[in-house]
Amino acid sequence: MRTVDLIRKKRDGGEHSAKEISSLIEAFTRGDVPDYQMSAWLMAVLWRGLSNAETAALTDAMLRSGAILDLGELPGLKVDKHSTGGVGDKTSLILAPIVAAGGIIVPMISGRGLGHTGGTLDKLEAIEGFNVNLSPADFLRVLREAGCALIGQTAEIVPADKKMYALRDVTGTVESPSLICASIMSKKLAEGIDALVLDVKTGSGAFMKRQQDAEHLANMMVETGRRMGKKTVALITDMDQPLGRAVGNGLEVAECLEILGGARHPLSEDLRSLSLELSAWMFLLGLRVANIEDGCKLAEEMIAGGKALAKFRQVCRLQGAPDFSRLPVAKFTAPFAAAAGGFIARIQCEQVGLASLVLGGGRSRQDDSIDHAAGLELHKKLGDPVQPGEVIATVHYNDPARLPEALRFLQAAYSIGPEPPAGPRTIVKNIII
Amino acid sequence: MRTVDLIRKKRDGGEHSAKEISSLIEAFTRGDVPDYQMSAWLMAVLWRGLSNAETAALTDAMLRSGAILDLGELPGLKVDKHSTGGVGDKTSLILAPIVAAGGIIVPMISGRGLGHTGGTLDKLEAIEGFNVNLSPADFLRVLREAGCALIGQTAEIVPADKKMYALRDVTGTVESPSLICASIMSKKLAEGIDALVLDVKTGSGAFMKRQQDAEHLANMMVETGRRMGKKTVALITDMDQPLGRAVGNGLEVAECLEILGGARHPLSEDLRSLSLELSAWMFLLGLRVANIEDGCKLAEEMIAGGKALAKFRQVCRLQGAPDFSRLPVAKFTAPFAAAAGGFIARIQCEQVGLASLVLGGGRSRQDDSIDHAAGLELHKKLGDPVQPGEVIATVHYNDPARLPEALRFLQAAYSIGPEPPAGPRTIVKNIII
Repeated sequence: MRTVDLIRKKRDGGEHSAKEISSLIEAFTRGDVPDYQMSAWLMAVLWRGLSNAETAALTDAMLRSGAILDLGELPGLKVDKHSTGGVGDKTSLILAPIVAAGGIIVPMISGRGLGHTGGTLDKLEAIEGFNVNLSPADFLRVLREAGCALIGQTAEIVPADKKMYALRDVTGTVESPSLICASIMSKKLAEGIDALVLDVKTGSGAFMKRQQDAEHLANMMVETGRRMGKKTVALITDMDQPLGRAVGNGLEVAECLEILGGARHPLSEDLRSLSLELSAWMFLLGLRVANIEDGCKLAEEMIAGGKALAKFRQVCRLQGAPDFSRLPVAKFTAPFAAAAGGFIARIQCEQVGLASLVLGGGRSRQDDSIDHAAGLELHKKLGDPVQPGEVIATVHYNDPARLPEALRFLQAAYSIGPEPPAGPRTIVKNIII
Repeated sequence: MRTVDLIRKKRDGGEHSAKEISSLIEAFTRGDVPDYQMSAWLMAVLWRGLSNAETAALTDAMLRSGAILDLGELPGLKVDKHSTGGVGDKTSLILAPIVAAGGIIVPMISGRGLGHTGGTLDKLEAIEGFNVNLSPADFLRVLREAGCALIGQTAEIVPADKKMYALRDVTGTVESPSLICASIMSKKLAEGIDALVLDVKTGSGAFMKRQQDAEHLANMMVETGRRMGKKTVALITDMDQPLGRAVGNGLEVAECLEILGGARHPLSEDLRSLSLELSAWMFLLGLRVANIEDGCKLAEEMIAGGKALAKFRQVCRLQGAPDFSRLPVAKFTAPFAAAAGGFIARIQCEQVGLASLVLGGGRSRQDDSIDHAAGLELHKKLGDPVQPGEVIATVHYNDPARLPEALRFLQAAYSIGPEPPAGPRTIVKNIII
């Protein structure tokens, strides 16, 4: 079938065979299908969607476009977690050492932040010396020694995704759930894992603002994982406010070290409990425990006994950072204060992410550089009472020229009302098995 | 606005400003918008459609991508006709000399056949010596002398369309009514005309199989013409069977010469009456007559008095063909006979066009060469009674190897039933003013 016929088929709402999809992806990766045909097909996919069978076929074809890690020599089950991205979302740095300390192998390949969301690689690079660019051989060596390694995408893994994402980014075809699903799942399955826990964010700081959209994507990813023979579960979790109380790379690492060290802070409880719950699911899928309660207990033990922190120290050392407490500190801090009294009634969480971004904590384009010290320390969360003039957040920054814009974003982010928001707040909104 | 934002806007169903559309088309024509972004935008347009204002803006932007002929030095109104294409559709060769003989200037820039449909340029080139590739200066010279000239697209006119069509052809984005409208209207308006008569075909041999689709496109083109300040009218006409009794370039020219010469043949009456009616509309829009009846009478007079044929002879001479009767003759003919008796109940008109194409009368790709002698002479039309073994069509061909496939197409095209199709057959199905 000619490429134009495949485009027309999808344009008219038809369903592709697995063969059609694999031919298209193979030819595109080889360079035999030009970008202008691929982008037309991608827009048709965004319009018409892909069936579960098509999405699985696309995931499989993308996966096969590159190397699939073979972790067969490592004993035991390999389990990873993936988050769709949010503000202050730093659970990876907490759960990876917890789960590895508990005996599961965690081969984690992460991404960088883009737009208002942070990325695990940027947070790790806030630690002096931490090297996320390991060769496949070094990745395997760290995994073998520590049971956990945290690296970035390599050129060998899913080259089709790299090429396709670059095209989607400039052709308005990022937002298709099927394409998002295939992009995420192909990269995760290339890690050679046995099971995957998905953290699908919903709310004002997530890509999926509406819970139903998050659930649609989550169902699609769980179904795709299952079709690919991997145990997969998805938690739909709240992103109507930043997770924990730090936003910005170095500040977020510090918050993670605090939790791994066993300290408790009321404003970090949401982060801690979500990290424990995700760890519990990883233990469950990795057959270390029989139920979530036991998984949570095991995770708590890893923290209480110091094993999780020791594991993180070991991973940092193996990846070039002998002292994980060496984090950058910003030259300046400034308060962001409440203009009126009342309660934190609503947070436009995306605006909080953008406040950190403009300070240098994030990037608006893929080649922007990061200021690892910049960011925000939050003193109030949703529903908290505030007095007029009380500090809601402390802004950490190196470049004073960037402060006013960050404060404007914060101003736009926080709504103070006469009453706290109605109803109880839960982090985990739904679980899709 | 960045190109990706324009794509996203259309993808999400938004309406572009005229400025947005002109920037996009200008940048694309310059080469500053890459094909892969344009094709994504084109697919989004196919999905979401364009408003009348957007379609007019696109037409205008495409028009302005190249030269617009200035016919100001020629006295009187300039009127052209455009057909959306069909099988045996040769009205241009009849009406252009009729209307020019009647005192209207007809600056006709036509296309080539593609797929099952024929093209005016291919028919003209069946006449020995006829040159359709005139320079703008020569085009003007012939127009000045004869009041009519028949040429092909030049590189100067609407370069955006050439570039965009090449992309649409390979990205499944040909079928958008808005894009079809802008492509046709920009090229026609670049002729420097005052008014335009559109012949929008519908039926089994047309691009628009359903009358409602043809009417949708016709309304859009009439509205676009009006917004561009040109008098525009559209006739929705029947293409459920070939027009007239010849299909194939040389054979079609012979049929036109017969009609221009004043002869009448029962199987060519549909062609003759449509040519007269289209001529009448051109006379009306050109302010030569006050109503269609008078226009038809004037057209009849041009034939009866020999002026139309003389005009065609003059145009041929000015365009390099001193003897317009020098037409190629095929080496072989073969009958296509009825397998059973009954009535011609249905014609898959597209299949008839493909029969001519495989004989060499058409092209499946833009760079295929044409056999101007090949084609079909029809002896039966819809509703005609046939005896078993009676000849339905005579096949004219030079290459015996191609005959069997042509006969197979004809076999597939004609359905013989116990009764003629119900209801009266009219050529003009609707008029959109």
